[in-house]
Amino acid sequence: MFIDRLIEKIRTTNNPTVAGLDPKIEYVPDFIKSQKFDAFGVTLKGVSEAILEFNRTIIDSIYDIVPAVKPQLAYYEMYGVEGMRAFDETVKYARDKGLLVIADGKRNDIGSTSEAYSHAYLGESRLNEHTATVAFHTDALTVNPYLGIDGIQPFLDDCKKHEKGIFVLVKTSNPSSGQLQDLLLQDNRTVYDAVADLVITWGKDLIGAHGYSSVGAVVGATWPVQAKELRQRMPFTYFLVPGYGAQGGTAQDIAVNFNQDGLGAIVNASRSLMCAYQSERWKDSFSPLQFGDACRMEAIRMRDDINAAIGGSHASL
Amino acid sequence: MFIDRLIEKIRTTNNPTVAGLDPKIEYVPDFIKSQKFDAFGVTLKGVSEAILEFNRTIIDSIYDIVPAVKPQLAYYEMYGVEGMRAFDETVKYARDKGLLVIADGKRNDIGSTSEAYSHAYLGESRLNEHTATVAFHTDALTVNPYLGIDGIQPFLDDCKKHEKGIFVLVKTSNPSSGQLQDLLLQDNRTVYDAVADLVITWGKDLIGAHGYSSVGAVVGATWPVQAKELRQRMPFTYFLVPGYGAQGGTAQDIAVNFNQDGLGAIVNASRSLMCAYQSERWKDSFSPLQFGDACRMEAIRMRDDINAAIGGSHASL
Repeated sequence: MFIDRLIEKIRTTNNPTVAGLDPKIEYVPDFIKSQKFDAFGVTLKGVSEAILEFNRTIIDSIYDIVPAVKPQLAYYEMYGVEGMRAFDETVKYARDKGLLVIADGKRNDIGSTSEAYSHAYLGESRLNEHTATVAFHTDALTVNPYLGIDGIQPFLDDCKKHEKGIFVLVKTSNPSSGQLQDLLLQDNRTVYDAVADLVITWGKDLIGAHGYSSVGAVVGATWPVQAKELRQRMPFTYFLVPGYGAQGGTAQDIAVNFNQDGLGAIVNASRSLMCAYQSERWKDSFSPLQFGDACRMEAIRMRDDINAAIGGSHASL
Repeated sequence: MFIDRLIEKIRTTNNPTVAGLDPKIEYVPDFIKSQKFDAFGVTLKGVSEAILEFNRTIIDSIYDIVPAVKPQLAYYEMYGVEGMRAFDETVKYARDKGLLVIADGKRNDIGSTSEAYSHAYLGESRLNEHTATVAFHTDALTVNPYLGIDGIQPFLDDCKKHEKGIFVLVKTSNPSSGQLQDLLLQDNRTVYDAVADLVITWGKDLIGAHGYSSVGAVVGATWPVQAKELRQRMPFTYFLVPGYGAQGGTAQDIAVNFNQDGLGAIVNASRSLMCAYQSERWKDSFSPLQFGDACRMEAIRMRDDINAAIGGSHASL
């Protein structure tokens, strides 16, 4: 089960966090950009080679202290086909280092099309009657619930068949998430409550050895009150929690996403890790050449900050 | 304005339809597969070359009689980086033939990430301080509303800046679309009504010369009762209507998506066009070698079927 692999990695590293790999070219230090632009020109290829080199160093710097990485597909699609090649190479590199890889794509569509997305990120793509192959070697995918079960079932099938996972958007971290998600239904649930109830149902056949499902939920760190309600509503759902750090969520805000067992959530940070070398906290200690070291220090600080807020070590559980 | 370009193409071709390019490898005739597998192996590259060749012939066969094509990203992502290259080449080929290209990706995320998606499909991606370039040369993108305005605003900005369009999911064609979309709110609207009302607001600053907005809505052909309500609710919103043909929507079902002016909707068909050569209707008239001709005949039949149901010719308007 994906969720058991994730929990075991969280325990081994004593770290309930995931490093977001959302490499805008602005985040990449000049020395890498100069090198790659000299070699490949100021082109989509040049940018993609730069972000791949950047990602490799980030991964080298943290692979032994974080359980997983979460590349955000938008930042690779933004650089076209070459960007998607950088995504593919990043995924393989992270996987070779033993990291779990959560593709953040918020994908969804009608059943037959969701099946294609599922084959792309969680399953295998059929080439002819005899041959199928893996398109992208990711372990889990974020998905959108708007189309109901038809759009989710293909992912559930691949989660079972290939030991993969999904995280379904429930309550997102952005300021306007309430515009649709907080609307009140006639049965007094919010729309996000209704989605939460669907996610519980969708995950029932994918509960692993630790009592959690491989069908998780995205619950933003910026909404602690709602997260607390959702934590009670969805006891066996793992939460992927974006919004820590640059988006304003604190470790205290995040603590409510965890259960008493110290499990139940994995917290994402992207910019605060990738751009640690530019931050007030670390910029006097590390030069841009040392961006990997700055990222590692920030990853350790984040781990300890969150472990302190949730009251202890996962290794001891 | 994107929407004016679309309406003008619809009038020129007298055809309110869009050809979906969702090329599963199973749809591609054996003679193309053999040729490409011989050259590139039974690999993601071989499959991608086959679907690109297939798409080119489909485009050659219909570019003068349809206004637009709609490649579904899932079917390209399914074949990995090489699949995305086939997507990119397909888009360029269609564009060179004068077709408008609607990327069907149902993308959405928080603001900063939606901006990356928007740059990828509607805008430009910044490479350094001086240079920006187009990642994918598409004219419009389908998007998901679940995150509210933050996740939509970046697309609106690029729609204005680059004369592009979006189609927001409102009521989808799949059987379980009601699981979330039909839930009743305390103000007696459904969730999809609430989304429709947001889409109206989001589109107000992008209304073109013909009185329609470049912010459209996806409304499935399989729900004519709901479509009729939505048509009244959203008078200046253009509808992208999937579900005709293989999904079961008839021309009569679809007629309710149009306004009295004969405009207001564009109907998608994918499988019934791409696989026309395998269909009961055309398989005795065309061999697999003639799949392009079969596609053209089906595109003409579909055009005439829909024009008859909506009562006339767009050319005369």
